[in-house]
Amino acid sequence: MPPTEAKPVAAVIGVGPGLGASLARRFAQMYAVAINARTPDFLRTLANDIRERSGVAFEIQADISKPEQVRNAFHVIRTELGEPEVLLFNAAAGPFGSVNEVTAEQFENCMRVNALGAFLCAKECAPAMIARGSGVILFTGATAGVKAGARSIAFGPGNFAKRGLAQSLARDLGPKGIHVAWINIDGGIDLPHRQRPSVNKEDLLSPDAIAETYWHLAHQHRSAWTMELELRPFKEKF
Amino acid sequence: MPPTEAKPVAAVIGVGPGLGASLARRFAQMYAVAINARTPDFLRTLANDIRERSGVAFEIQADISKPEQVRNAFHVIRTELGEPEVLLFNAAAGPFGSVNEVTAEQFENCMRVNALGAFLCAKECAPAMIARGSGVILFTGATAGVKAGARSIAFGPGNFAKRGLAQSLARDLGPKGIHVAWINIDGGIDLPHRQRPSVNKEDLLSPDAIAETYWHLAHQHRSAWTMELELRPFKEKF
Amino acid sequence: MPPTEAKPVAAVIGVGPGLGASLARRFAQMYAVAINARTPDFLRTLANDIRERSGVAFEIQADISKPEQVRNAFHVIRTELGEPEVLLFNAAAGPFGSVNEVTAEQFENCMRVNALGAFLCAKECAPAMIARGSGVILFTGATAGVKAGARSIAFGPGNFAKRGLAQSLARDLGPKGIHVAWINIDGGIDLPHRQRPSVNKEDLLSPDAIAETYWHLAHQHRSAWTMELELRPFKEKF
Amino acid sequence: MPPTEAKPVAAVIGVGPGLGASLARRFAQMYAVAINARTPDFLRTLANDIRERSGVAFEIQADISKPEQVRNAFHVIRTELGEPEVLLFNAAAGPFGSVNEVTAEQFENCMRVNALGAFLCAKECAPAMIARGSGVILFTGATAGVKAGARSIAFGPGNFAKRGLAQSLARDLGPKGIHVAWINIDGGIDLPHRQRPSVNKEDLLSPDAIAETYWHLAHQHRSAWTMELELRPFKEKF
Repeated sequence: MPPTEAKPVAAVIGVGPGLGASLARRFAQMYAVAINARTPDFLRTLANDIRERSGVAFEIQADISKPEQVRNAFHVIRTELGEPEVLLFNAAAGPFGSVNEVTAEQFENCMRVNALGAFLCAKECAPAMIARGSGVILFTGATAGVKAGARSIAFGPGNFAKRGLAQSLARDLGPKGIHVAWINIDGGIDLPHRQRPSVNKEDLLSPDAIAETYWHLAHQHRSAWTMELELRPFKEKF
Repeated sequence: MPPTEAKPVAAVIGVGPGLGASLARRFAQMYAVAINARTPDFLRTLANDIRERSGVAFEIQADISKPEQVRNAFHVIRTELGEPEVLLFNAAAGPFGSVNEVTAEQFENCMRVNALGAFLCAKECAPAMIARGSGVILFTGATAGVKAGARSIAFGPGNFAKRGLAQSLARDLGPKGIHVAWINIDGGIDLPHRQRPSVNKEDLLSPDAIAETYWHLAHQHRSAWTMELELRPFKEKF
Repeated sequence: MPPTEAKPVAAVIGVGPGLGASLARRFAQMYAVAINARTPDFLRTLANDIRERSGVAFEIQADISKPEQVRNAFHVIRTELGEPEVLLFNAAAGPFGSVNEVTAEQFENCMRVNALGAFLCAKECAPAMIARGSGVILFTGATAGVKAGARSIAFGPGNFAKRGLAQSLARDLGPKGIHVAWINIDGGIDLPHRQRPSVNKEDLLSPDAIAETYWHLAHQHRSAWTMELELRPFKEKF
Repeated sequence: MPPTEAKPVAAVIGVGPGLGASLARRFAQMYAVAINARTPDFLRTLANDIRERSGVAFEIQADISKPEQVRNAFHVIRTELGEPEVLLFNAAAGPFGSVNEVTAEQFENCMRVNALGAFLCAKECAPAMIARGSGVILFTGATAGVKAGARSIAFGPGNFAKRGLAQSLARDLGPKGIHVAWINIDGGIDLPHRQRPSVNKEDLLSPDAIAETYWHLAHQHRSAWTMELELRPFKEKF
């Protein structure tokens, strides 16, 4: 695997046709990217797309809310590509609804994807990053992690937990040379091939534009790191 | 049960000899209090103590991180005392440790006590409160819910989640007449019968003093409600 | 002055017929109150009202954005009533408008009332409080001190500054036994004798209800102090 | 002035040998930079340095806490270079000290530099930016704008005010196409030619590294803007 060996590894967890795909394509310009999703179809399309542009992409189908599957996924990534130098945790799930509507099962599932999954992926990547004295872990968050609305009875706590996790990791791992940050995507993402006649494109975030800021964060000089920031369309109210 | 019938009901979840006991005693001055813990011993002592002062106390042994047990607990409270007008969610659990130390099982357990348990108790109480157009739900939080330290890899996300839950509930239930608040206990609590030679009493929070502010919050006029506040010893750094 | 001598002194700065009057009346139940405003008319009415209920009230006409006038005002308070044990800083001033509308003069005036005035009053009271090892300083704030809107180009910075001042004082004076807090009044206050046909009374804060929470804060046990909280009507969006 | 005409204009306010110089040099790679300070000596050195690298630099000596001087300064910038498309407000001043130490004059001066000066510069630049439908305004802040320490009785309020100003401007001007952001420089800056034997270089921010993030912010796609972020050395406690 000569081309792979030459490249550092970035793991992109929770890849769909929106932000996940943009992150994978952007980081594939320099990294061998391991791309993860629960279902295989889009991963295949994206991996082919990246390879056509001479990138290295490796598909990892796994449900990151399951400890066993996370363990296997990172074992395979390590074996096939090497230890990740960059972890982009982009998975998210919620039901939306109020306390009367959301069930205990839905609530727990939301916590598993947003919080447990983030914890497990960080736990897989941290030891090698600590040993190397460098690394990057970025979490995709949402405004619900700062301000939980009436119908975010599960999505709110899940995103709050993910933000708390990022903070704890940053305080632990920062002095060890690992850059941890949490990005609040404050608005809807403009998904390709998805027509939303009721929504003006100007009110949406371009996933490629978001990916540029992830790229910037991932390569900030360690004397000047950002731990938390938001990204929102210029017209978005906040 | 004439004395019971005359009194409104307050459920105090997660009662130990520290803040839980002070909350139970303070609210027993006006409410019939249902007091919950995982183990029965302290509950019995406390209930007897409250009854000796002519209060109404009802012990509910239950692990509030288990949906089935929460359901049973509130069924019994409703049957024996009536629908709670006040819910004081005081349960919390750690572990403390970094990402390398804490296991997936410990992480999940922490999320279940702090977040799922809080969700389940609120879910049990909300319908009757909504129907009545009034009610009080107070959550005991910690600084780890605002600022997660290096060793709060699980306790941080658990407390962040609980705070997000409180916010979401407040935005949903406030306009329906139900006062939801989250209280950050920023410091160590002065536990009775516990000698800590290394700690100056001046550096600890008196649980009775905390209970006075819970009482104030629970009885604020609905034109001037507080959603979030902190309590800390006068010497505490922040 | 026998009745005065027996009572501790509270200075209420920025008194009008809304919150200022409610604070003065509430604290006059236990304190000799010095009440301040720029103009004398309402002060006289309020002072007479307090005296009729056997309270002690002392009128201090002064523009607290002027260092000289603040110095004189507190000199008179000290001479007539004694050193204040409680300072309630309730003064505030706008204008509202955007960067194109507000003038440099308006901006500076806004900073002088909200920030300089607060600083000067705290500076007058701090030495005696430090010497005594106790005291209370409460600042009336607004949501603009947390989140500055498009038309709060001056009111926002003024309120941010007042909040920053309260934080700095709390960190300095707290360990010296002086309780400093900042209260965010998040909503419109229901002013007596003011008909607002377009506003539902349920959407406004009762100034007497606000005053109850100031009273609670002023008398919290020093093992469990609150530094910052908000008060809002139950229906208010946040 | 052919070289000037071809270049967009960036005004860098409050330029010293640390961050101001790095910002000026970085932006001079694409912009004609107007560089401001109260005293002329360093401006001359820096302007010569920029010109030697084929950049366009224009020195503006002015005290930006004085409305008259700000008006003149921007009049000259407009005449000599054109309307600024980028405003980097980097001025700051404080005394440090507690409420007993800082004088009213020092407090007011601190508010004038940090808040009034920022307001005045924004006011000079906004109209042309609004007319053009684009522009960038970045404010250099400090942790004292988020958390005011015991000795930040003036520096805290000054920085809080600047942050409130940035927020208000962002909400007003964002939808008009103008990107406003506030950057918290959380730590000491590594000044060239300044030996601090007691400080490890690893504990300081590199001003060139900071400037890279300003550059990134200034050129974010308008579908994904950041309003607030912090920059800190990897070892810095927070």
